[in-house]
Amino acid sequence: MRNKAEALFRARQDEICAELEALDGNTFREDLWTRDEGGGGRTRVIQEGGFFEKAGVNVSAVFGPMPKEVLESAQGRGVDLGGDGAEFFATGISLVLHPHNPHAPTIHANYRYFEVERAEGDKVWWFGGGTDLTPNFLVEKDVREFHGKLKSVCDAHDLEFYPKYKAWCDRYFHIPHREEARGVGGIFFDNLADRSADDLYSFVADCSATIMPSVMPIYERQKDKPFNEEEREWQLLRRGRYVEFNLVYDRGTSFGLRTKGRTESILMSLPLTARWEYDHQVAADSPAGRLVEVLREPRDWVGSM
Amino acid sequence: MRNKAEALFRARQDEICAELEALDGNTFREDLWTRDEGGGGRTRVIQEGGFFEKAGVNVSAVFGPMPKEVLESAQGRGVDLGGDGAEFFATGISLVLHPHNPHAPTIHANYRYFEVERAEGDKVWWFGGGTDLTPNFLVEKDVREFHGKLKSVCDAHDLEFYPKYKAWCDRYFHIPHREEARGVGGIFFDNLADRSADDLYSFVADCSATIMPSVMPIYERQKDKPFNEEEREWQLLRRGRYVEFNLVYDRGTSFGLRTKGRTESILMSLPLTARWEYDHQVAADSPAGRLVEVLREPRDWVGSM
Repeated sequence: MRNKAEALFRARQDEICAELEALDGNTFREDLWTRDEGGGGRTRVIQEGGFFEKAGVNVSAVFGPMPKEVLESAQGRGVDLGGDGAEFFATGISLVLHPHNPHAPTIHANYRYFEVERAEGDKVWWFGGGTDLTPNFLVEKDVREFHGKLKSVCDAHDLEFYPKYKAWCDRYFHIPHREEARGVGGIFFDNLADRSADDLYSFVADCSATIMPSVMPIYERQKDKPFNEEEREWQLLRRGRYVEFNLVYDRGTSFGLRTKGRTESILMSLPLTARWEYDHQVAADSPAGRLVEVLREPRDWVGSM
Repeated sequence: MRNKAEALFRARQDEICAELEALDGNTFREDLWTRDEGGGGRTRVIQEGGFFEKAGVNVSAVFGPMPKEVLESAQGRGVDLGGDGAEFFATGISLVLHPHNPHAPTIHANYRYFEVERAEGDKVWWFGGGTDLTPNFLVEKDVREFHGKLKSVCDAHDLEFYPKYKAWCDRYFHIPHREEARGVGGIFFDNLADRSADDLYSFVADCSATIMPSVMPIYERQKDKPFNEEEREWQLLRRGRYVEFNLVYDRGTSFGLRTKGRTESILMSLPLTARWEYDHQVAADSPAGRLVEVLREPRDWVGSM
């Protein structure tokens, strides 16, 4: 499964990057890197492109002794990975796209396969992942369509998946100190091992094939929409919140930094530019205010289709 | 001591803000706020001023039940604050100044007095604080003068203070995932209770009176220095690192967010604008490169005066 999952993520990276290059008009810079403690990855970035301010698509397969902090943090979530001396293997794809145009949303997706050989000798494995959308303005049609695509791919595998993973996504991408969500959600799941590895592989293969179809129609509709200075400023403030979530709460970022991952590949998720204004307020009935309302109280997007 | 320390910090805020307003040409916006669980503060901010892109000076005095995470985090540092049921009181001043001009450094200072009534019934108190400088370019004269001022105030109290607290500052303001310091340091100390509260109060009173004298001569020299686009971009990248330190590692920020402090007052420390370029490189013999060299290997600034 290690090789099969890694091959899947590498193939997805190629497919996705080809589509993104066609949209942006620029080619990705590619960096191959290795990790001292074991493994490596392939990072691809477009910066200040035609459509994207910053777009990163990364695959990696890393392994080695499991860091103590990660064992403890898993234990804190009720996952027993055993004591010191565990070895881990992790392979995954992660993608973050930040367009120039404030009307075009940021999208994030990450799919991964994890194995831990516990010090006790047995092996634990799981899949994790998700796709979620972070718009600066609320375009209900876009959000419904996005969630609709994710629901379809979930439903093809298990009717319980979408409601469960939609709710998990809302819980995970939450910024407690702002009392709001990072974006309008999507799906998120972790420690998935409740059926055969082949079945879950097939689910993750389908989810990762749905990243581009879930966002491309939105990009096509929003990419030429004119915007003004005020909308650009609001976009930069929202990117500030994106940075807050990723640096303060995101487990993937924290895991990466603590396992001495490649910093540039981990923090490639951060936007090119961000802004923090003291006590910025938005009117409830403004376009910005309508987004904030949804971030404060996540909605059921597909039920209302 | 609670009232005495709080009064000191409020007086310092007034003195400092008067000096900053004279430099900037704008007046501070002031927000008085209260905290549901107990206490409150006075936040003052200048944003997009004449000299400062963002300048914040905050005083607060907060109290209430000690959050569990804080007790555990203190325990992790070897400080026993007792078990559940402890009550805390904290008063402090914190200041972060981000000038427009890339040649003028960011300065941060924070002084605080802390009391914990442990569940066991006894009381623990300490002082903490520090002043540190984050320039975008290395101006050796500025850094030597800055450290010299801090050394003088330390030496007047104890000859062991400056070397000890200079080293503590270098250790504290370190960004492990970047393998560099946030800036060129200064002084930092915490859990200080090794002499009488009056003696330490007097030390903290002198330190907080030295914030402005340590940085004003630098601002006077650098404020009209011309700068170009490249220097501005480098400033924004350095501000990105500032954000990384504050959100990932800073204990004060983490304490504030976890104790449900006022988010806008805590994150007032973040710059107005920041930037993250993928894998930005600087030439070793460039002005940017000379700063990075010092961030990678902190120097003894006063020994070489």
